[in-house]
Formats: sequence, C-alpha cells, structure tokens
Amino acid sequence: MERLFVIKIGGNVIDNPTGLSSFLDDFASIRERKILVHGGGKVATRIGEQLGIKPQYHNGRRITDAETIDLVTMVYGGLLNKKLVAALQKRSCQALGMTGADGNLISAVRRPVKEVDFGFVGDITPADVNVSLLASLLDNQVVPIVAPLTHSEGEILNTNADTIAAALAIASGTRYDVRLIYCFEKKGVLLDVNDDSTVITRLSEQRYQELLTQHALADGILPKLENAFSSIHQGVREVLIGHADDLIRNTSYNTTGTLITGDELGQVETE
Amino acid sequence: MERLFVIKIGGNVIDNPTGLSSFLDDFASIRERKILVHGGGKVATRIGEQLGIKPQYHNGRRITDAETIDLVTMVYGGLLNKKLVAALQKRSCQALGMTGADGNLISAVRRPVKEVDFGFVGDITPADVNVSLLASLLDNQVVPIVAPLTHSEGEILNTNADTIAAALAIASGTRYDVRLIYCFEKKGVLLDVNDDSTVITRLSEQRYQELLTQHALADGILPKLENAFSSIHQGVREVLIGHADDLIRNTSYNTTGTLITGDELGQVETE
Repeated sequence: MERLFVIKIGGNVIDNPTGLSSFLDDFASIRERKILVHGGGKVATRIGEQLGIKPQYHNGRRITDAETIDLVTMVYGGLLNKKLVAALQKRSCQALGMTGADGNLISAVRRPVKEVDFGFVGDITPADVNVSLLASLLDNQVVPIVAPLTHSEGEILNTNADTIAAALAIASGTRYDVRLIYCFEKKGVLLDVNDDSTVITRLSEQRYQELLTQHALADGILPKLENAFSSIHQGVREVLIGHADDLIRNTSYNTTGTLITGDELGQVETE
Repeated sequence: MERLFVIKIGGNVIDNPTGLSSFLDDFASIRERKILVHGGGKVATRIGEQLGIKPQYHNGRRITDAETIDLVTMVYGGLLNKKLVAALQKRSCQALGMTGADGNLISAVRRPVKEVDFGFVGDITPADVNVSLLASLLDNQVVPIVAPLTHSEGEILNTNADTIAAALAIASGTRYDVRLIYCFEKKGVLLDVNDDSTVITRLSEQRYQELLTQHALADGILPKLENAFSSIHQGVREVLIGHADDLIRNTSYNTTGTLITGDELGQVETE
C-alpha cells in the first residue's frame, strides 16, 4: 500500500508566523501522499470580538450559536484555509482547500440536544468520510487542506480538528499505509509537561493505561491520545504526536516525537 | 463534445433568500456538466462595516487594501461559498467550493501599480485556468462552486466574478461545448432597462456595435456584453444573459434571455 500522512496542526502553530512558514516549507517538501487538517487560532477570537460575538461555554465546552458558526465558517473555511492554500501553492504544493461540505468530504450528525444545546456542532465517525473522493484527489497528486467544519442537511457544522484528522486517517486506512501526525507546540507526550526532555518516544497501550491510572499525563494531551489509540484500533498503522518543528523527522523512520503503533501492546517502550 | 454550463450569479441573486433557494433547486437539477461562479453580496459590506473597514474607491473602482482582501477572503471564500456548497449538497449536487488558489484553478497577475494602486486585485486571462484539473473534476461528476478570488505568489487576490466566469468558459471551450450563462435580476439585455418586455432575444455582434454607437444600452450591462463577445471570439459556443429565475429555460434550446452565438454575425435577430 502507498503511504499517506494525515497531518494536523493546531492554533498554536497557525498563530506563529515564522514557525508556520517553516512548517509549510517542510510540509510542501513531503513527497508521499499527504493531507493537512488545520484548527483555528486566535484570529477567530479577535474577529469575533470585533463583530461583538461573545463566546458561550457550558462546563468549559464551547457552544456554537448561529453567529459563531458564521464566524468560524468565515475564518476557518475562508481566511485561514485560503491563506494556507495560497502559501502552499507558492511552495509548488498542489493544495486544495476543503471543508467537510466540499465534495461531501465529511458528513456529520448535528449533536442531539440533551441537557445542553451545543448548537451547530457536528459529530462524525470514520464512516462519514467520502473515501473515494479523497482517494481520487490523492491519487491525482492533489493535497487536501481541510478546515475543521463538516455539514448536515444543508448546514455547516463545527467539528473538532483532532477528531477530523483521526476520522480521515481511519477511513483511509483500508487503502493506504497511514501515519497520523498531530503537530503541536511540545516535543511529544511528556512525563513532565514542562520538560521537553521527558518525551515518551514509544507509547504502548498498556503503558498508556498505567499512566492514565496514575494521573501522570497533562489534561491537554488526553483527547489526542484517545484519538490516537482509537485510530490504531481502527486500522491506522502509526500515530505520531510531536512538535510542528520536527515534521520532517517525524515523517521518517527515525521519529523524535511520541510514536504509537498497532504492534506496541505488551512491548517494553524506550523513553 | 460534452455540454458544459458555466453559470454566474451576482450579489443580487445571493441577497434574495427565496430567489436563491429556488435558483439552487434549478441549478441542482441540471444534468449536464456545470460550474457555478458566484459574486459577493451585501453581506461583505455589512461585515466590513462591523469590522470598521471603510470601502475605498478611485473613479468608482474599488481599491482592495490588506484589510479588504482578508474581508472578501472570509466572506466570499468562506461564508458565501460554503453556504452555497452545503445548500447544494443537501440538494444531492456534488458541489466542491473553490477559489482560484485551490488546486491552482486560476492563477493571476497582481495588477501593476500605475497612477493608482488597486491593491490586492488579480488580472487573469483564460490561459491562467488549470483546465486539466477542471476537466478531471467535471468528468468525475464534481461541480465546482467558484468564489471570485484568485492567487499569485502566495497571496489571495480579488478578481471580478464575470471575468472569472468568462475565463473558465473560454478555457473549457477546447474540451466542451460551452454555454456561459450570466444570471442577474433582469430578463436579459433590454432595449428599455425598465421594461422586461424589451429583451433582445438574439444579439449579433453587428447589432451590438450599432447599439453601442447609439448609446442605447444601460451602463450596467456593458461589462457583461464585453465579456460575452470576447468569449464567443475565443471559442465559447453560446453566451446567455438572463434572469436567475429563468435558469432552466435558459439551459434549454428554447431560451428566454439574450442569446449570443458565434454564428450571429450578419444575421437578422428577432427581438
């Protein structure tokens, strides 16, 4: 099977112009098939403030009301997505910006209202990915640049970018040899969140469960790890969690971030 | 050759929710290959005002400064484009939203600064269209929904939607039997701009030149007619200028708007 890298960058990478430019140089230089999934960034918050849109939360989880879905459709699907695409085209990367609505790439179910109405939020599973469209783009040397938006019944919906990256990786797992790479501002999963030298370079599921029991992991990394192991269980060959600056090394066999693979269970990991 | 409809809608169509919904029903029902090019609308002006962006003009022509290109990238490339795509997907139309940057669909040259710096404005020719990408999408039953934005050297640029539609039509003319349809809020080219019963149903180039000499045409229609005849001279088989409500009839052989074809020269036209 051909290799495919599904690479996700978060807001911290997008908000740092120098780091972003160097990341895009690296991304453009990858010769294998690749997909970029991007999160938001401070620009949505800033423009939202200028437009007088007040963020609303319930127990720390954001509620996407009608004004907010328009805001993120503009900023994620328009401003950020097209700036990334233009910057990559300049680097001779055949980038094509997409939301989940485009070509029905990712359909969603609007989150059902229980105690809370989260608004225009889309829940997805890997079965919601249009794999045949994705494959036809990838096999024609097109590089999808995916904004964290999905759709249902004619509406654009807000969907977490980590979840989108995992769904794309899992859905592609039957056709490609997939490495899912989460790029963020740390070197990887850290035993001490303030010390980049404590990267866990290989993480087995057994060790993950032990660290969970010991509450040894920072809260921020838990959703990524949950997506990571869920991806491995559903046919993604490798998940790598690492720094955006280390992209080239982390697309090689000699990774420097945290590597999670399907054959890790029961192995002794090196740290 | 297969038929292809390149259909352009302007801001007046987009700003009318009922009319737009019925237009999208009609557009979705077209069975031949098709491309939709959309203009802006009042929403860009409204959001620009909220963000404190003052429109700047020189002799009535808008100047696109850095703030304005970000605004239109958000609104045209994000909000409007994705709403159209989601609405068409709901109608089982395999819509894919694009700017000229996406897949390098339309590269541009940033307009050179002479007496005036028009800012982030892109000038294009039909040779700037990536026809092979376009054909591979169309031949895979994908329907491109194109926002009026192009790109050059890593920058997104503002480009007139009528011009984009003409460039796409001309560039496709070697592969497809193209009818370019400009949809707006009039029944067609009118002898009396206030009377929809004065539609010129067939317009030859000779008659067009006569009407120009007589100053018998409304200013607003002149750029469309210039694009129309330029398209015909460059291999587009037919151009139709008509009302958005008449789309279905204007995609048939029994058109109701103003039809311009390559074999009109010297013919007597019926009005």
